[in-house]
Amino acid sequence: MSPPAIDGGDDCYVGPSLEAAVAWEAGKPLSIEEVEVAPPQAMEVRVKILYTALCHTDVYFWEAKGQTPVFPRILGHEAGGIVESVGEGVTELAPGDHVLPVFTGECKECDHCKSEESNMCDLLRINVDRGVMIGDGKSRFTIKGKPIFHFVGTSTFSEYTVIHVGCLAKINPEAPLDKVCILSCGFSTGFGATVNVAKPKKGQTVAIFGLGAVGLAAMEGARLSGASRIIGVDLNPAKFEQAKKFGCTDFVNPKDHSKPVHEVLIEMTNGGLDKAVECTGNINAMISCFECVHDGWGVAVLVGVPTKDDVFKTHPMNFLNEKTLKGTFFGNYKPRTDLPNVVELYMKKELELEKFITHTVPFSEINTAADSSQPQISPAAAHPTATHHRRRGRRKQRLQFRFQVEGEEARFVCHAAPLRPWFATQEDKEGRKWRNLTLHPPSSPFFLRGGGGAIYRRGLDFVGRRVMATAGKVIKCKAAVAWEAAKPLVIEEVEVEKFITHSVPFSEINTAFDLMHKGEGIRCIIRMEN
Amino acid sequence: MSPPAIDGGDDCYVGPSLEAAVAWEAGKPLSIEEVEVAPPQAMEVRVKILYTALCHTDVYFWEAKGQTPVFPRILGHEAGGIVESVGEGVTELAPGDHVLPVFTGECKECDHCKSEESNMCDLLRINVDRGVMIGDGKSRFTIKGKPIFHFVGTSTFSEYTVIHVGCLAKINPEAPLDKVCILSCGFSTGFGATVNVAKPKKGQTVAIFGLGAVGLAAMEGARLSGASRIIGVDLNPAKFEQAKKFGCTDFVNPKDHSKPVHEVLIEMTNGGLDKAVECTGNINAMISCFECVHDGWGVAVLVGVPTKDDVFKTHPMNFLNEKTLKGTFFGNYKPRTDLPNVVELYMKKELELEKFITHTVPFSEINTAADSSQPQISPAAAHPTATHHRRRGRRKQRLQFRFQVEGEEARFVCHAAPLRPWFATQEDKEGRKWRNLTLHPPSSPFFLRGGGGAIYRRGLDFVGRRVMATAGKVIKCKAAVAWEAAKPLVIEEVEVEKFITHSVPFSEINTAFDLMHKGEGIRCIIRMEN
Ligand SMILES: [Zn+2]
Ligand SMILES: [Zn+2]
Ligand SMILES: [Zn+2]
Ligand SMILES: [Zn+2]
Repeated sequence: MSPPAIDGGDDCYVGPSLEAAVAWEAGKPLSIEEVEVAPPQAMEVRVKILYTALCHTDVYFWEAKGQTPVFPRILGHEAGGIVESVGEGVTELAPGDHVLPVFTGECKECDHCKSEESNMCDLLRINVDRGVMIGDGKSRFTIKGKPIFHFVGTSTFSEYTVIHVGCLAKINPEAPLDKVCILSCGFSTGFGATVNVAKPKKGQTVAIFGLGAVGLAAMEGARLSGASRIIGVDLNPAKFEQAKKFGCTDFVNPKDHSKPVHEVLIEMTNGGLDKAVECTGNINAMISCFECVHDGWGVAVLVGVPTKDDVFKTHPMNFLNEKTLKGTFFGNYKPRTDLPNVVELYMKKELELEKFITHTVPFSEINTAADSSQPQISPAAAHPTATHHRRRGRRKQRLQFRFQVEGEEARFVCHAAPLRPWFATQEDKEGRKWRNLTLHPPSSPFFLRGGGGAIYRRGLDFVGRRVMATAGKVIKCKAAVAWEAAKPLVIEEVEVEKFITHSVPFSEINTAFDLMHKGEGIRCIIRMEN
Repeated sequence: MSPPAIDGGDDCYVGPSLEAAVAWEAGKPLSIEEVEVAPPQAMEVRVKILYTALCHTDVYFWEAKGQTPVFPRILGHEAGGIVESVGEGVTELAPGDHVLPVFTGECKECDHCKSEESNMCDLLRINVDRGVMIGDGKSRFTIKGKPIFHFVGTSTFSEYTVIHVGCLAKINPEAPLDKVCILSCGFSTGFGATVNVAKPKKGQTVAIFGLGAVGLAAMEGARLSGASRIIGVDLNPAKFEQAKKFGCTDFVNPKDHSKPVHEVLIEMTNGGLDKAVECTGNINAMISCFECVHDGWGVAVLVGVPTKDDVFKTHPMNFLNEKTLKGTFFGNYKPRTDLPNVVELYMKKELELEKFITHTVPFSEINTAADSSQPQISPAAAHPTATHHRRRGRRKQRLQFRFQVEGEEARFVCHAAPLRPWFATQEDKEGRKWRNLTLHPPSSPFFLRGGGGAIYRRGLDFVGRRVMATAGKVIKCKAAVAWEAAKPLVIEEVEVEKFITHSVPFSEINTAFDLMHKGEGIRCIIRMEN
């Protein structure tokens, strides 16, 4: 469906802000480059990435410890975006659709996809060694003709990326992508581990090992399941305060005890936990997670990814004593089938993703950025269509946008509780209709949707129109390219995953890596503000 | 409820055949002794054992390898019997009730008993080290005042034993105890592992490791669940032929392959088994059982009991690939709650226990025994009440019994398909009613039940009447006493459990041990023909 044509605006532009690529500091191989993104081929989709987050897995494969190095490569997999164009045979998605790219796919045809229990698609299951599209074994990214490898089929550290249709979940276009983008990896992995696999019953006790992003999401699942007691286990006592918001009732730091932590937990719970979820990937934590569950009915669920040489060891009598050991991959969610429903849970306010967002860059900084730099029109953003009018002088309190309205079917949808929009349709001297929208407070998440599939968003140009101009053509855009493996990080700093505590513009992707290096925050969302 | 009084008969007696205790051959410490069995105390029940089987676990604890030796001890735990008398507080059982003693109990009050998922009762869970009753910490068995230890709360290698009420499943009195006795251990353990834990869906593939008694029962569960392919894994190729009767479609002998057996199985099944059940207790088989299941949905269930120092090792990615590892104890059946229902399954002909009975001692041998030895009236059998009339000269083809009928409510129930009974009520000159019953072929299992709870069985005296005379008193009876640990058996010979392939009288209990030593048959049922 083609979107309504909307002309350029009159006053001031909150348009693309594609600064020149900032080179990563000396010695670090990640750098922002201009890349060519080829059109999507059969069963592929080219996606404009709006938000992407940095997940531990990106760092892990950037470090490439004990792995076959696949470089140069564009990392990134936790993201939200909008379909720019689709390749041959793609019928489920169309330009303008909101999508979550997922590092693992769902072909809907293999035994796994047909099984009710599995989400480990034979065709599109995560493959960390493959750096090319599965269709033709080639990359869609090039820099001056030289191919740059893909990462887990997503490569979201790019303004545009090409993804197999089976790795894209089509979601409610009214869902705020800067929030629900976290559902594409860490949140779903942890939350699903609890609600789909451990399945605590109301009143049961649950232990969560590791209070990073995945662990907190697992904890959120326990809280929503009605667990009576949720014990958080982490080596960092600073995590407890934050975890309380997710329902954590007790905190155990293995360092505080001379006996093994599973013994501590068994004593605390009169025989063991009903359910336990391991989110660190540390092999000893995995073993403790299994040992600490109650015989007769206890279920331990492994989520954290171990290293290649780890060995899980236990006495088999633990199994005969009716403890169950399971693991999960992406929270047992089937990406295309299940993720849209998880997004709906959020829309119905049953999921509180906001809790995972503990820090945001103040909206005023976006204004400042927009004021201080003349927007650059990159090839990728050559067709800005939404005209955003910002009333000067009041931008710290509120922001006004003006959109052209095409016909009577045009509509604006506005989400997020703190938003108090004011709408009024005006006609200009050429007879074009405009609608004004006032937003405050300015840091509110919001979403605007025009009629006929046109999609507007803060700082975002009109996707539909660009589609018309770019479909089938190579797009040049900015992407963060990892040219070679990073020097290994200190393991303690990266072993716990994090979740949206920071948000930075794409140009500051290095900050995200810095934060993860320092172990600060949960997730840093990277805004592709082109 | 007191049973009807029935007088002695007229002609010939198929009564107790308590030969003198046969001493175990030189060097073997198991011997049949006359023991005193004290009356049941609070929450205890004294049970007359009618049939008991020899299970690998008996041999294992007789060998006492790596265990705290508890001797002298009366072993035995797979059995069927009839309540002789009950202690204080026992309300669910009464004299005459048919029961299956179970090595693990169900108090119905602890967290495990209240949990829908567990059968590992806190109070009565199997305790292999305890040789006394839990009520007062004493044994109910003595020989000339010297206490003899109990075994797993059952000690069924005795004509009479005392058992906690929580370790007795009250079953349909019409169920043939010589068949359903196998439900009290091995059959339920294997069958339940499949139907309660692995839960194969119709059309799924199942591997069974170990084709002994437990493994064949697990296989029977797979067959009844509608598995499309059942792969039996055993080191002994002779097991395959027998296993076919239980639904085995493919046989894999690890010795026939140079690669690990789990790789063979994965190749055979295009990626792995849907479900696998391990019934040997061998740690390598356990690991193979887990490795061979399909990622995404495969479930491996451990049943076989490992040795104390075994370590289960695997790469944790197997769990993250969504394989599940569970174990089960007694097939996840709650003894009191669930076993009566399993017996009903048999009664409804949904379970084919007969297949597990591959050898029986011909009935003619019982006749011969009865002919050749003047029945001895032991104290335990001092009150024979059923009068069995056997017509001379035709005993090889058929056998006639005559029972007195008390009033109109009297009835006889006759089971087992090949049985062709002929009934006719006759009155004698004193006005007593008699009913004749002709049975053929003579090897048929059969069961007769009189009105008012009176229970008759081939070779069995009238239980109810004896109850009246013995309740509250010490009973003297024969029991097989293990005076000390056996010399260790060769492991290969005992690592696979067996199931009813032989049946011997109690006096020949040594034969059962011999058969198990030789690895012959599945189970040998020991008939307590007192
Ligand atoms: Zn991730
Ligand atoms: Zn698939
Ligand atoms: Zn047994
Ligand atoms: Zn209990």
